[in-house]
Amino acid sequence: MTESATQSKPNDGKEPLSLAPPRGMRDLLPKETALRDWATRTILETYEQFGFSRIETPALEHLQNLKGGEGGENLKLIYEVLKRGDKLEKVLESANVERDQLADLGLRFDLTVPLVRYFCANQNDLLFPTKAIQIGSVWRAEAPQKGRFRQFTQCDIDILGVKSEIAETELLTASSAALLNLGFNSFQIRINDRRLLTAMVAFCGFEGKFDPIFIAIDKLDKIGVDGVEKELLERWPAEPVKSLCQLLRSSQGENADLTSFGTALQKDGSNLPQELSDALNSLAAIIDGVQSTADGKYDIVFDPTLVRGMGYYTGPIFEIGMKGYSYSMGGGGRYDKMVEKFSGRDVPACGFSIGFERIIGVMMDQGTKPKDAREKLALIFDPNRDKTADVMKAADKLRKQGYSVSAHPRKKDMTKQLDAFLHHDFAKFVAFKGDVDNLEIKVLGNK
Amino acid sequence: MTESATQSKPNDGKEPLSLAPPRGMRDLLPKETALRDWATRTILETYEQFGFSRIETPALEHLQNLKGGEGGENLKLIYEVLKRGDKLEKVLESANVERDQLADLGLRFDLTVPLVRYFCANQNDLLFPTKAIQIGSVWRAEAPQKGRFRQFTQCDIDILGVKSEIAETELLTASSAALLNLGFNSFQIRINDRRLLTAMVAFCGFEGKFDPIFIAIDKLDKIGVDGVEKELLERWPAEPVKSLCQLLRSSQGENADLTSFGTALQKDGSNLPQELSDALNSLAAIIDGVQSTADGKYDIVFDPTLVRGMGYYTGPIFEIGMKGYSYSMGGGGRYDKMVEKFSGRDVPACGFSIGFERIIGVMMDQGTKPKDAREKLALIFDPNRDKTADVMKAADKLRKQGYSVSAHPRKKDMTKQLDAFLHHDFAKFVAFKGDVDNLEIKVLGNK
Repeated sequence: MTESATQSKPNDGKEPLSLAPPRGMRDLLPKETALRDWATRTILETYEQFGFSRIETPALEHLQNLKGGEGGENLKLIYEVLKRGDKLEKVLESANVERDQLADLGLRFDLTVPLVRYFCANQNDLLFPTKAIQIGSVWRAEAPQKGRFRQFTQCDIDILGVKSEIAETELLTASSAALLNLGFNSFQIRINDRRLLTAMVAFCGFEGKFDPIFIAIDKLDKIGVDGVEKELLERWPAEPVKSLCQLLRSSQGENADLTSFGTALQKDGSNLPQELSDALNSLAAIIDGVQSTADGKYDIVFDPTLVRGMGYYTGPIFEIGMKGYSYSMGGGGRYDKMVEKFSGRDVPACGFSIGFERIIGVMMDQGTKPKDAREKLALIFDPNRDKTADVMKAADKLRKQGYSVSAHPRKKDMTKQLDAFLHHDFAKFVAFKGDVDNLEIKVLGNK
Repeated sequence: MTESATQSKPNDGKEPLSLAPPRGMRDLLPKETALRDWATRTILETYEQFGFSRIETPALEHLQNLKGGEGGENLKLIYEVLKRGDKLEKVLESANVERDQLADLGLRFDLTVPLVRYFCANQNDLLFPTKAIQIGSVWRAEAPQKGRFRQFTQCDIDILGVKSEIAETELLTASSAALLNLGFNSFQIRINDRRLLTAMVAFCGFEGKFDPIFIAIDKLDKIGVDGVEKELLERWPAEPVKSLCQLLRSSQGENADLTSFGTALQKDGSNLPQELSDALNSLAAIIDGVQSTADGKYDIVFDPTLVRGMGYYTGPIFEIGMKGYSYSMGGGGRYDKMVEKFSGRDVPACGFSIGFERIIGVMMDQGTKPKDAREKLALIFDPNRDKTADVMKAADKLRKQGYSVSAHPRKKDMTKQLDAFLHHDFAKFVAFKGDVDNLEIKVLGNK
């Protein structure tokens, strides 16, 4: 858009309209919308084949719910909605207007807080265990930057109520099937377990809070083991750092192996604690389960260095990566304590989130087109000569032949008009001559 | 939901969460979500066959845009979003906090204001004329009542840039096709023209502002001609009221006819003004055009008493009604002046809005189910005996047979478990016995 086009020029002396969408938000053009719709349909249909059902919650939540959760940094990014009517007036009448009293609702910043509220509110009407799909917008008032938007789509599946590793296996198999159906391949799932991470750090001799250590390990992709070592040495004694980095070096890349990792964590031949051998067995079953139907089309590997950001994970964690892309295409994990924290009811849970905006970005870059679209045909008629009824009959006939048909009045410069159709992905056109029985379909250029 | 379930019981001493969604807003259960998704897919696919493309705008708009439009009553119902960071602090530092300075964004209350902004902002990237589909949420802080929600879905198509009545004809034919594809039939389109309404009222001898007269005529369905007469007589002289009501009586129901209505408006055999004969010709062409492909499946009639609420209409207006329902299933009209008012550029426009929430309500009442859903099958396994990989292989095999398959660990009371599946629309189940090659599919009860 040119600078001069960012404000409109009304002819009635009113304040001019802002033509650009709010900062950090987007208008979606038809081409991208069509791709997003196809991706959404494909993902939804795939997940439904795995027995998940889509649910929906309002875009707005009670502010206290959003702020009471474990949103971390996201809590600072909430779009808050002003109270209305008398409630607002009462707040404004006060001598010192309190900022915290101005808003009562907020736009959701993720789909996890709403899911947990939804589950607690509707559990009597839901099949238990509950397998939910959520595809919807979330809002975060982040500093805008390339590829990061203040309204964006999240695409989550969650299983509430299943302790068994069948849950993780279904999440990963279903999400992989969705990516395959979107045309992606040669992707790799990396899997780890929060309990193994904790055990590894404890085994190396660290003491105290482990979160900063996890955060350092999380940077391995970007700064390498040497970088992690340097960062850890600034805050921790040399011995546990050396020990950890030795373990990291031996576990990186394709070298990691569940059994030898388990052995590495055994002190002097003693048995592993039950929790750790459970974690290892569970990972082995998930890897085995995912591979059993992957048919060699994608891969799953144990990666003891995988961390995942969110603090609420309690067991297996996973990410899907793609060759040639430094960022992940999705990830998730088990969060067995969250529902209990919100509701008092002990409900095991795990989820997977496809990086919807990222995969759309990749598909836009690759020029991917919806696989189920009809061929677009322009029916050009002469509004001074052709009867509306005849144009409609001709269009109807062409639609029944399988085309998507748009009837357009002929413009003076028909060459320019045809160029515009071609530019907007029309494949064919008919120059209507008033004869419904005689429609000559012509190809538009060669793209 | 029971009273005691409206708040959660956290175990960490925090403020309890509100389990219910915000006032007037809804959680959607899987059954309704599946129906809505199918309806959305069907409508979208139908409109695409008519050459419309979906576009998307952000949920939030600049508040000045929302308030500068022609939203009428809706302007009072906007959810306003609090400014953020320094901007908010600056407002709060002031001795008298000004209410109008607190918010800078608002949730959209319809899809028309965003469409016009979008069109003006993106016209260089859009095919012109522009045929847009919008399906999305809008928000209005209305007093909640049965069937009216504070977040609801609107479903609009609009054609920007076409003067010819082909535009109205395509809107009506495409929307009728969408309703047919959703399984509705025996519906009727009523059509009128704002110019005829004005001419009719002027012809009867009214003077001054006609809007209150239109509002009275709009109540015809509910209070009859006698009721309209009584209401008008309270404010207007008897002569024009009598004259108008005579015309209304002769034009009600199936009696209306374009030619005789035109004749009725001719004074002493003089010619009709050009604008009126244009309007009548245009309506005749639309009716003819719609009927040419309706194939007797639906009906279109001239109704000189049709008003439509919004003040921005300039030409043909229309509504779709269904036998047995007092409210309309959708409506729209031509609004040739709106884009000019916002942008200074003269762009003719017309649109149609399907009453999405209403048709979903009717379909829910009728027990309509998505026509493209796979049969749901529960695969019940024993987590203590069955290997995850075997369960996944069995599920994969059943999915390849066309089922939607969900693997569930067996519960102690399997009868109760099967009842729950039946209740949630599962058609069949397999009690997995560890043997992937031997899967016995059983029907679940008889519904």
